[in-house]
Amino acid sequence: MEQTQIPGAGRTRTHTWSDPLASAAAVPTRSGLDFLRAMGEGGIALPPVMSTLAIEPVEVEEGRIVFALQPAEFHYNPIGTVHGGVLATLLDSATGCAVHSTLPAGTGYTSLDLSTRFLRPATVASGRLTCTGTVVSRGTRTAMAEARITDPRDRLLAHATSTCLLFPLTG
Amino acid sequence: MEQTQIPGAGRTRTHTWSDPLASAAAVPTRSGLDFLRAMGEGGIALPPVMSTLAIEPVEVEEGRIVFALQPAEFHYNPIGTVHGGVLATLLDSATGCAVHSTLPAGTGYTSLDLSTRFLRPATVASGRLTCTGTVVSRGTRTAMAEARITDPRDRLLAHATSTCLLFPLTG
Amino acid sequence: MEQTQIPGAGRTRTHTWSDPLASAAAVPTRSGLDFLRAMGEGGIALPPVMSTLAIEPVEVEEGRIVFALQPAEFHYNPIGTVHGGVLATLLDSATGCAVHSTLPAGTGYTSLDLSTRFLRPATVASGRLTCTGTVVSRGTRTAMAEARITDPRDRLLAHATSTCLLFPLTG
Amino acid sequence: MEQTQIPGAGRTRTHTWSDPLASAAAVPTRSGLDFLRAMGEGGIALPPVMSTLAIEPVEVEEGRIVFALQPAEFHYNPIGTVHGGVLATLLDSATGCAVHSTLPAGTGYTSLDLSTRFLRPATVASGRLTCTGTVVSRGTRTAMAEARITDPRDRLLAHATSTCLLFPLTG
Repeated sequence: MEQTQIPGAGRTRTHTWSDPLASAAAVPTRSGLDFLRAMGEGGIALPPVMSTLAIEPVEVEEGRIVFALQPAEFHYNPIGTVHGGVLATLLDSATGCAVHSTLPAGTGYTSLDLSTRFLRPATVASGRLTCTGTVVSRGTRTAMAEARITDPRDRLLAHATSTCLLFPLTG
Repeated sequence: MEQTQIPGAGRTRTHTWSDPLASAAAVPTRSGLDFLRAMGEGGIALPPVMSTLAIEPVEVEEGRIVFALQPAEFHYNPIGTVHGGVLATLLDSATGCAVHSTLPAGTGYTSLDLSTRFLRPATVASGRLTCTGTVVSRGTRTAMAEARITDPRDRLLAHATSTCLLFPLTG
Repeated sequence: MEQTQIPGAGRTRTHTWSDPLASAAAVPTRSGLDFLRAMGEGGIALPPVMSTLAIEPVEVEEGRIVFALQPAEFHYNPIGTVHGGVLATLLDSATGCAVHSTLPAGTGYTSLDLSTRFLRPATVASGRLTCTGTVVSRGTRTAMAEARITDPRDRLLAHATSTCLLFPLTG
Repeated sequence: MEQTQIPGAGRTRTHTWSDPLASAAAVPTRSGLDFLRAMGEGGIALPPVMSTLAIEPVEVEEGRIVFALQPAEFHYNPIGTVHGGVLATLLDSATGCAVHSTLPAGTGYTSLDLSTRFLRPATVASGRLTCTGTVVSRGTRTAMAEARITDPRDRLLAHATSTCLLFPLTG
């Protein structure tokens, strides 16, 4: 059949996740560090997008978090490399969660922006990528964090900074 | 089985894509507009990440491209909304492809950066999102584009600007 | 005298300004639009930096403001063009004041960031530059604005976006 | 006379500089590090904008440069602090010159963008500010640098990243 020649055929992947509102409901009652540790240890479900893009939690401490990503074909853009948006998702996770790790229970955050720089392309040949997010400045109303993606040879592939707005959670 | 109580169980999704290097190989031989039109019409496979995140091509002309996204649970972050990285992926696709649509055959591009601002959260209740990318400035060595994500009520959810480096493709 | 051979000799400029705290004191008691109009009409002193860099107010309405700059030698960087920071100052003035123009008396703002793109160099041959700032999104806790610098032929020289934090002024 | 009550009266400053095209002419013939060292030592005139804003060179090595600024009233914005554009000028000088310090004779650069974050206000009470620029990534076609402004207590006031385009200088 010609159908086998139609572009788009061929590769298949199945991913699973759980109700994201269940884990979101745990946010107000825990400190950010407790919440993220529980997530890393499996006590709270990982957010769906991490399953969708196969982002893995590695470690967290106050003000710093590490994620990993094994580049795969399903991350690719039209020009044969990992899509910049996949790297941006890693970076945004790292900056946002680094900020979250500094917040007490009852304080929420939202990312106002993400300023990303793409320095080297990532491909399936890059090997497992590490993304480290670090809080640079933590005020009472806003916090600023940066994140870096490196390959196994410790070369910098992408960099981002982000400002998060902090606010009291009600309920 | 205990497995049903483990967070992360429950939701499943399967997505498919085709060899991304096959479509990437078509880049040097076609103008950007021809390439993107063929992609929109199915003659060239969509890039894998668009299937992974369910980003849909809508329309393209020289210097302007539109994508769409129906927010779904598998796009969610830990705090109960569409992950900023998913929006960044939409925006990066729109800025990069808007620039690509202005390039003749034999000219390549790469995104140097993406500066994203998140203005309103997106959720499954937002309805289908539209992301429009537009070229703002097109030089011979670089081009700059912006992109906007709006909801069905035409409210602005996110905004980005990006600079792309242009270069001759060899081979 | 050898002094005539020392680099740095030669050009001189004198500029004047008035006590900036006097005008700053007027901020809490007036709406942003009233404050900026009074500044444009001379009832409130222009901020010192505008004199230092010879930035001129042109016009203001709610959510939009225009400044002008005549490029001069004293704006130059080491590589023979107007320093990007001078353009950034114009852009930051335009984004910040565009946001200010939407604020009622008693509401303050501060710029969290400025994301600037330099598209064409400016020189003394460019002619008088126009910088227009426009509010893109106005929330209760933050506002986002963009600004554009154009030359007399309406070519875009620089572009910026900025997010401002809004807060109640006390006293 | 009422004129003494008109805002805008009062403060005066005179600054001097030299022909910027003379120093710009030295760019193609020297490595960036040689050029910047000569500038720091007075063999090449400082660029005019540094005199206009009273930015002082402190030290330079390959891939890293330090500037200083003593905040003064003539740097002020309408709301009683050092204008963000003055900080952006410092940051842009630091990122651009850090990149320049890595370039051989015959290679030029231009800043494509500057992504600035303002973390704490600067005032005349802040004391002398230090701005350090560092190259983060240096390719053949582009380079990326970051810069930080700190006060005498080593608190971070502002942060920026920038991408520069590199190109062969002709003539």
